[in-house]
Amino acid sequence: MYFTLQSPLDMHLHLRDEMMLYQVAVHSAKSFAGGLVMPNLVPPVTSIETLLAYKERILTACGNEKFEPLMSLFFRNDYSYEFLQKAKPYIYALKLYPSGITTNSEGGVNSMDIENLRATFEAMSELEIPLCVHGETNGFVMDREAEFGSIYEQFASNFPKLKIIMEHITTKHSVDLLSRYENLYATITLHHLLITLDDVIGGAMQPHLFCKPIAKRPEDREALLHVALSGDSKVMFGSDSAPHPLHKKECCGCAAGVFSAPIALQVLVELFEKHNKLENLQAFISNNARVIYNFIPLAKEVILEKKPFLVPNNYGDVVPMFAGAELAWSIKNVH
Amino acid sequence: MYFTLQSPLDMHLHLRDEMMLYQVAVHSAKSFAGGLVMPNLVPPVTSIETLLAYKERILTACGNEKFEPLMSLFFRNDYSYEFLQKAKPYIYALKLYPSGITTNSEGGVNSMDIENLRATFEAMSELEIPLCVHGETNGFVMDREAEFGSIYEQFASNFPKLKIIMEHITTKHSVDLLSRYENLYATITLHHLLITLDDVIGGAMQPHLFCKPIAKRPEDREALLHVALSGDSKVMFGSDSAPHPLHKKECCGCAAGVFSAPIALQVLVELFEKHNKLENLQAFISNNARVIYNFIPLAKEVILEKKPFLVPNNYGDVVPMFAGAELAWSIKNVH
Repeated sequence: MYFTLQSPLDMHLHLRDEMMLYQVAVHSAKSFAGGLVMPNLVPPVTSIETLLAYKERILTACGNEKFEPLMSLFFRNDYSYEFLQKAKPYIYALKLYPSGITTNSEGGVNSMDIENLRATFEAMSELEIPLCVHGETNGFVMDREAEFGSIYEQFASNFPKLKIIMEHITTKHSVDLLSRYENLYATITLHHLLITLDDVIGGAMQPHLFCKPIAKRPEDREALLHVALSGDSKVMFGSDSAPHPLHKKECCGCAAGVFSAPIALQVLVELFEKHNKLENLQAFISNNARVIYNFIPLAKEVILEKKPFLVPNNYGDVVPMFAGAELAWSIKNVH
Repeated sequence: MYFTLQSPLDMHLHLRDEMMLYQVAVHSAKSFAGGLVMPNLVPPVTSIETLLAYKERILTACGNEKFEPLMSLFFRNDYSYEFLQKAKPYIYALKLYPSGITTNSEGGVNSMDIENLRATFEAMSELEIPLCVHGETNGFVMDREAEFGSIYEQFASNFPKLKIIMEHITTKHSVDLLSRYENLYATITLHHLLITLDDVIGGAMQPHLFCKPIAKRPEDREALLHVALSGDSKVMFGSDSAPHPLHKKECCGCAAGVFSAPIALQVLVELFEKHNKLENLQAFISNNARVIYNFIPLAKEVILEKKPFLVPNNYGDVVPMFAGAELAWSIKNVH
């Protein structure tokens, strides 16, 4: 049994830099036609020059695989209109991080006050540059995303022409916001479709399922699953695949991030098949993103086969999701 | 500045066995006059012979420190009245574990159905043997204790003469139950007075704060703190101090348990002082337990001094809570 995907896209991807970039980029490039590359390097990507140089390094790391890095700039509220206009041909989005909220977000925005952000949001609206947001407050870990909900609502209602993507949503509350604002969209990760907080700390503590935002309650996962499986045009796949070297995952106080790039498509096909929704996977994995970001991805056909795939225990010093497990589907062919 | 405690008691304590027992028991024995020793060894403590032999090993491990191990039997619903009558002089409680709910609880009770437990509960009521309960269902990790609430209510209302101790409570819901049933009591750990889920997974993942039940929400901690600081006669200190060797805490999928025995008194004095409730600590740390368990502890005076105490990074291969930190109070003298 085969299943074919046309130009699958990963609309939220961390490729890091240097040695780690060379370890991981190829695994995204093997499965996907493109990916929206997050700009939270150290220092963050805030100029056209560093962005283009980073893109070159990514392409080199991808070797011969057909893959387009869709670049994003780290959001700053002091970018001029002229700068954004100049950057526009090279970028797919600006990514806004509240300061200190996740890995390498220290240079992010301190205040979500609209007046603080108005000039940039208006320039982005006019230039049709989407805004990607890591939507968490610094409140209690289970409430952070819901608490950010009112900020999303302010953004969406005050800047109706701005396309706002709620990144890696994890709650029913966020899913519910999607239908209330025309200009709100979302990415959903693979792991948030599969796990709840129970899987992270309900039995033994599982560092390799530790991520930000943390996986939430069963009813949250149900809501995410429902909107993803339905092919709803407001949601796109974004793996948030985020490699950390083994020693940073297992030492005391481990880093947040799940590395799912090499297994994402295989598991998504299994998941959509299980729920009899295979016909909606193309929308979730590519078509919705094309419309939301208004672009045509590289032509790339990925043929999956229902044939067991044994996930390696590690890729270099990075442990993938489902390490050592046997998946039902494997990638047969890519062209 | 000095503060004196009379016969402090730790009414929920894991001492393990063999090498680990010899590493940890002395740290409880140095601070406390006695401790209710949990029976979840492998195999669990279910006979008078094994209980007395375990008590001997504990006393040997405590060396010259003045410390009374208050022994408990692992709850089984097939103990006869005659057996319990014979055991009564040697035990302070029976500890009930739902099967598979925590470390070494595999031999626990499968059904919380009252008819399944009636004969044992009636015998315990008549013999005045308290029932200690690990009150969690196998539901979603944040709901397990609240879900067990209705079971506590059934136990309490159907067996009004049975003293029921809700062990290591972590929720406002459990605190609220205390005032509704005369025969419901509770132990509270040190760590649940200090941390919430935020401290475990809100920043980096902290294996050394991973425990069962997991720390809950801020409003839960507030409720626990309020009832403990007030000296409420329904609650007692029970550290749930539970050592695991380092390699089991930091490897992938780490074990649950916080080792707080060596620092519990020092931190409790600091906590009660901070809230201007030092006058209630004696009740929480000893007097309430004497009434609830109806016994007179060994006479032991512990004098604490407001003088910095640097917590060791490890005791043997066990990492304590507050490893490497400086505490405001230290133990000056014990006699």
